[in-house]
Amino acid sequence: MVVDGCPPLLELSEDDIQPQLDRRRPGQSRLTTPRRESDTVRILSGVFEGKTLGTPILLMVENEDARPSAYEGFRDLYRPSHADFTYDAKYGIRNWQGGGRSSARETVGRVAAGAIAEKILALAEGVSIISYVRRVGSIEAADPKRLTRKKVDANDVRCPDGEAAEKMAAAIDAARRDGDSLGGIVETIVTGTPAGLGIPVFDRLEADLAKAMLSLPASKGFEIGSGFDGTFLRGSEHNDPFVPRVDRKTGETRIGTTTNRSGGVQGGISNGEPIVFRVAFKPTATIRKPQRTVDTEGRRRTLEARGRHDPCVLPRAVPVVEAMTALVLVDHWLRQLSMTSAVERMQRSSSEARRPTSGRNRSDRAPADRTRGGRK
Amino acid sequence: MVVDGCPPLLELSEDDIQPQLDRRRPGQSRLTTPRRESDTVRILSGVFEGKTLGTPILLMVENEDARPSAYEGFRDLYRPSHADFTYDAKYGIRNWQGGGRSSARETVGRVAAGAIAEKILALAEGVSIISYVRRVGSIEAADPKRLTRKKVDANDVRCPDGEAAEKMAAAIDAARRDGDSLGGIVETIVTGTPAGLGIPVFDRLEADLAKAMLSLPASKGFEIGSGFDGTFLRGSEHNDPFVPRVDRKTGETRIGTTTNRSGGVQGGISNGEPIVFRVAFKPTATIRKPQRTVDTEGRRRTLEARGRHDPCVLPRAVPVVEAMTALVLVDHWLRQLSMTSAVERMQRSSSEARRPTSGRNRSDRAPADRTRGGRK
Amino acid sequence: MVVDGCPPLLELSEDDIQPQLDRRRPGQSRLTTPRRESDTVRILSGVFEGKTLGTPILLMVENEDARPSAYEGFRDLYRPSHADFTYDAKYGIRNWQGGGRSSARETVGRVAAGAIAEKILALAEGVSIISYVRRVGSIEAADPKRLTRKKVDANDVRCPDGEAAEKMAAAIDAARRDGDSLGGIVETIVTGTPAGLGIPVFDRLEADLAKAMLSLPASKGFEIGSGFDGTFLRGSEHNDPFVPRVDRKTGETRIGTTTNRSGGVQGGISNGEPIVFRVAFKPTATIRKPQRTVDTEGRRRTLEARGRHDPCVLPRAVPVVEAMTALVLVDHWLRQLSMTSAVERMQRSSSEARRPTSGRNRSDRAPADRTRGGRK
Amino acid sequence: MVVDGCPPLLELSEDDIQPQLDRRRPGQSRLTTPRRESDTVRILSGVFEGKTLGTPILLMVENEDARPSAYEGFRDLYRPSHADFTYDAKYGIRNWQGGGRSSARETVGRVAAGAIAEKILALAEGVSIISYVRRVGSIEAADPKRLTRKKVDANDVRCPDGEAAEKMAAAIDAARRDGDSLGGIVETIVTGTPAGLGIPVFDRLEADLAKAMLSLPASKGFEIGSGFDGTFLRGSEHNDPFVPRVDRKTGETRIGTTTNRSGGVQGGISNGEPIVFRVAFKPTATIRKPQRTVDTEGRRRTLEARGRHDPCVLPRAVPVVEAMTALVLVDHWLRQLSMTSAVERMQRSSSEARRPTSGRNRSDRAPADRTRGGRK
Repeated sequence: MVVDGCPPLLELSEDDIQPQLDRRRPGQSRLTTPRRESDTVRILSGVFEGKTLGTPILLMVENEDARPSAYEGFRDLYRPSHADFTYDAKYGIRNWQGGGRSSARETVGRVAAGAIAEKILALAEGVSIISYVRRVGSIEAADPKRLTRKKVDANDVRCPDGEAAEKMAAAIDAARRDGDSLGGIVETIVTGTPAGLGIPVFDRLEADLAKAMLSLPASKGFEIGSGFDGTFLRGSEHNDPFVPRVDRKTGETRIGTTTNRSGGVQGGISNGEPIVFRVAFKPTATIRKPQRTVDTEGRRRTLEARGRHDPCVLPRAVPVVEAMTALVLVDHWLRQLSMTSAVERMQRSSSEARRPTSGRNRSDRAPADRTRGGRK
Repeated sequence: MVVDGCPPLLELSEDDIQPQLDRRRPGQSRLTTPRRESDTVRILSGVFEGKTLGTPILLMVENEDARPSAYEGFRDLYRPSHADFTYDAKYGIRNWQGGGRSSARETVGRVAAGAIAEKILALAEGVSIISYVRRVGSIEAADPKRLTRKKVDANDVRCPDGEAAEKMAAAIDAARRDGDSLGGIVETIVTGTPAGLGIPVFDRLEADLAKAMLSLPASKGFEIGSGFDGTFLRGSEHNDPFVPRVDRKTGETRIGTTTNRSGGVQGGISNGEPIVFRVAFKPTATIRKPQRTVDTEGRRRTLEARGRHDPCVLPRAVPVVEAMTALVLVDHWLRQLSMTSAVERMQRSSSEARRPTSGRNRSDRAPADRTRGGRK
Repeated sequence: MVVDGCPPLLELSEDDIQPQLDRRRPGQSRLTTPRRESDTVRILSGVFEGKTLGTPILLMVENEDARPSAYEGFRDLYRPSHADFTYDAKYGIRNWQGGGRSSARETVGRVAAGAIAEKILALAEGVSIISYVRRVGSIEAADPKRLTRKKVDANDVRCPDGEAAEKMAAAIDAARRDGDSLGGIVETIVTGTPAGLGIPVFDRLEADLAKAMLSLPASKGFEIGSGFDGTFLRGSEHNDPFVPRVDRKTGETRIGTTTNRSGGVQGGISNGEPIVFRVAFKPTATIRKPQRTVDTEGRRRTLEARGRHDPCVLPRAVPVVEAMTALVLVDHWLRQLSMTSAVERMQRSSSEARRPTSGRNRSDRAPADRTRGGRK
Repeated sequence: MVVDGCPPLLELSEDDIQPQLDRRRPGQSRLTTPRRESDTVRILSGVFEGKTLGTPILLMVENEDARPSAYEGFRDLYRPSHADFTYDAKYGIRNWQGGGRSSARETVGRVAAGAIAEKILALAEGVSIISYVRRVGSIEAADPKRLTRKKVDANDVRCPDGEAAEKMAAAIDAARRDGDSLGGIVETIVTGTPAGLGIPVFDRLEADLAKAMLSLPASKGFEIGSGFDGTFLRGSEHNDPFVPRVDRKTGETRIGTTTNRSGGVQGGISNGEPIVFRVAFKPTATIRKPQRTVDTEGRRRTLEARGRHDPCVLPRAVPVVEAMTALVLVDHWLRQLSMTSAVERMQRSSSEARRPTSGRNRSDRAPADRTRGGRK
């Protein structure tokens, strides 16, 4: 993974990245694929004496438990609802040995990069990004109270509602025993985002979040704030009233909303309220049950997959969703910083009596004397 | 609106663009805002003697019924669930006179550009893009049969299920009388898309569609294929079995699927089945009912909007969703064309006995003789 | 012209833009084309009550003296060293009526956008960008002393060396009388640029300047600092020694160089010394003298152009080069601001005892209570 | 190095890449740095069974002879005309141990990627890209006749004019003995480029070439065709007359020019003539002679570098310039292919009687039946 655009002078080591990779890695619990990967990350460049250099950061995670031979049986088969057929249709060639860009293994890179983004946002703005499993199949968690990542990790499902989590775990186990799989919903709550992130028209904040989430393997839907359910309401029920809100500590007044059906974004721009969205993940496409399909010649065949797959991707999707959230937010944050800093710089300068020479690094000699080295 | 990247030699006139603008324009029926705009488009550059030049196309639609004074009352008020507050938070300045980038009026440009994209796709690939109003509030249409744009336009709601459409129209009328508003869902079905569009990992086809849709004013959610509902299924119920499919006319066999829970996209790449997705639109934020809010100083105020607004944006959102769909698809189509043409070109050349001189436009003289004009 | 990315709250009116357009417009002196265009600019959007909104700025300059009929005679001819042939080769279609993207008229847009960029840089950093005509044909100006734009504009040639300017003007006049044209060199000196602009590897500052300059009509070369002449030196003669330099006003010491063969850029990044570069412009391709050419069918023909052309583009190229310089610099400045501001923000936060609630606009209530509008 | 955008189905192995890396690697002759690096490339992903997959290609070249300790003495010194000072100014941190993005070692990646680009262009279009050392210090080669890469590599200088090459080698040797360095000019001649590459206004072909070349370490200038020298000519002397040219083999007539002062590009678009340009490289900044400079605190110091450096970068710059040329050309070629293929596709379709069902991969059933899996 190459991470470009990270500011310099950020203290960074593998320890900042590994924890989220550990939450994503296979084999971490009985609910996930039994494939064993330590997913140990190494920083190969971009960090010097413990600090980022401002230049691209190269991260490496090696595969340890790849078994190309396990895919031998699917060599000429199109697995239903997988990318085998579409890769062939697009490229005319396909690496049938597993891994590659159609494997969810590619999310390793997203999580590693996201951990860096998350560190920046937490450090600079106190942003907190927490995702959790909201629903598995038809088992839905209750609204969380004072959500923390610790509560999320209290069980293997990554659902802070312990009671629901137990049912979810049982359902996932049952699906696995049946050689089947389950889908569900991951919800994300971001607090601490400053107001002002997002760009009108095409690069709205929720648009970039939606793209990030729909770029994830197995995702089928995205909704922000009131989402699809909000479409059942009338405007008078749906609008979020503005209110003044006094900060108990600082005594300052800021503007907030009493409800948050907007999900923290209005007109494509964050309003300072929590950003809340949900992502739908389909049941894992790889199952053990026999399935009808065709081979690469279009002949009818039956597929009986063995392989090592997740009966439900949701628990491992949690850090992936968090990572993509952090990446979207940090990009918008950097864009906004550029703009606000430019405004500050223009205003500071025009309010000063402009002095002929500032303290900035610039020439104070006539330029013409010194530019002709090549000619004299 | 500036449209860049349109291929040359496409026959193009205002008549190709105006029909979709007419479907979007205000004042077209009693269900929409009474504001009167003809939304007449003029092509100012990029077309010569009826054909595109391959250079950017400048399109202009003038405002005819803007009333800045109508916004005078909101000058220092933050309208709930509007972009007033977030624009101020982001930019420190805001044009309070209506219009601008936070107005849905900006979708004029999307529709105009989309009409060009749609013409290209229809001409080159026979792609058909049809959106319709699937649900208004809690009134949902039945699954459409042999959907056409004509059926969609058979009523003012743009819902091909006539019975549901009547109820929707009545509900919208009722909301308007109450000074209130309604939301709902627009569904889109695209046929004729070749397999192979979409780029793995970040630029998946559904990711770009999701971004495009969430960039629309008032949209709160996106789902493709089985979407959120599909998360209730098990993998064995959800996977789309592949089957050989014989074309009755050409006799050729191609690979299809018996169900389409994938929504026409697998692994981020189109599979040749219909692309099906839904977009959630919230109830219009502008309502006549009094609402609590604050002014720009954070003081509590009551807002009583009059103004001319849509009690439900869904009917006018239909051509906007179609336009964004066309823009996403044409971009991916051009990217794919580039790749497949490169492969063809490389293979054609290597299968030919390479002749020392091809018919391509190139020099056959020694280059050195002719490059020294400036020196001799 | 659409200018995107301009920060908000910048005071901006047509008066900030018109002066540079006036320096570029045709018909301003006997040395330029006699075509009369006032090139009056209007701001159509993006500015509100005299200040930028942070959203795109639409500028319009109308053509007033276009004569499509004047090009009737070249309809099927390829003018030598013009873009007629290559546009046909690329697009298969060409607007033969003059104007369009192959006309130097497109530089109007560059100059208008550049004037905004220049205002930002001057206001925020005190950057000064001055270009002038360094050479026309074989007549070269002496190194300028304390260059100002006023000195540049003291004559129609835009050469601050009055003696050379007279000879240049005479040479241009002579070329015009002969139905011929001249080329030359524009030199640019930028002072006040802060150190640190430019991105290693691909987006080096001189790389982006080179691209900007070679994108100009009629430009054939770019060199920075010692340029081509510097290649005759040995390293020991060419390297710029670093020295401490005490600012006479502030008493601060900064690091400077005693010579500036680097041209203000080292390792792709500005070092705070003046940025100095030169652009070569070929003699105008349009001349009155008869020329051999072919028509669109490849048949030999003789071209006798009349038309209204510049016998030498250099005087009018001066503001165009300045504009492109400003655009390159402002982009790199905004990128750098984003990075340095991020570092400041991260450091400020970590040096503070992190308080549980900052004064930033954020929620202080449990998020879960307020995100469920659509569901309750 | 990650190479994205390479079409699939290209036969590719390390053998396609290594030869150009060998021409760039240190230690290849007595004229270059004595540092020993084999620069052996490995393909880590993106190629399967000898063919590209269409997905990103990861290439790895390991450092073998890095000596961080050799830089210990410069830890707090700013080497003149190096990037030490500007990196500190930009980032506030700098890896002083050599390597990194300010080292010319980064050109390894460019050369590896360029080799792939070159293979595509050669295979698909018969493009030939040849660079050579045109001048070292004041020793200039004669115009080459029927240039080949073999002739270029006939000596260590990479100058096809053997007589000049001997003098150049002697001059480089003398500079090395003196602890000094030399600069010069690399010229590039590209044949076989189809007409039509390049995009008007900002992405002109020569603009992208200029950016690519000025992004190279030590480059100070770029000129195309007649370049700076052409500015001494009048238009009537400079314009390239068009002529019909009959291909001796195919008998076809194409349009060419009798001279090539345009350097193969007119109006920003290739015209099918050889593309000819020159790049100026300054004398290597690292020299053994003592030099005045300052340390990071701004105190005057004397630098006495030892280290292993090239007394003249020109011989090793040749494959780097070729690589960047190939990368620029292949990008423009892919962009042009996309456009021309779109035109073909639109025209083919409209000339056919449109049949209701084509052979393309698409659904022929009513879409509505098959999109509801998740709901039923």
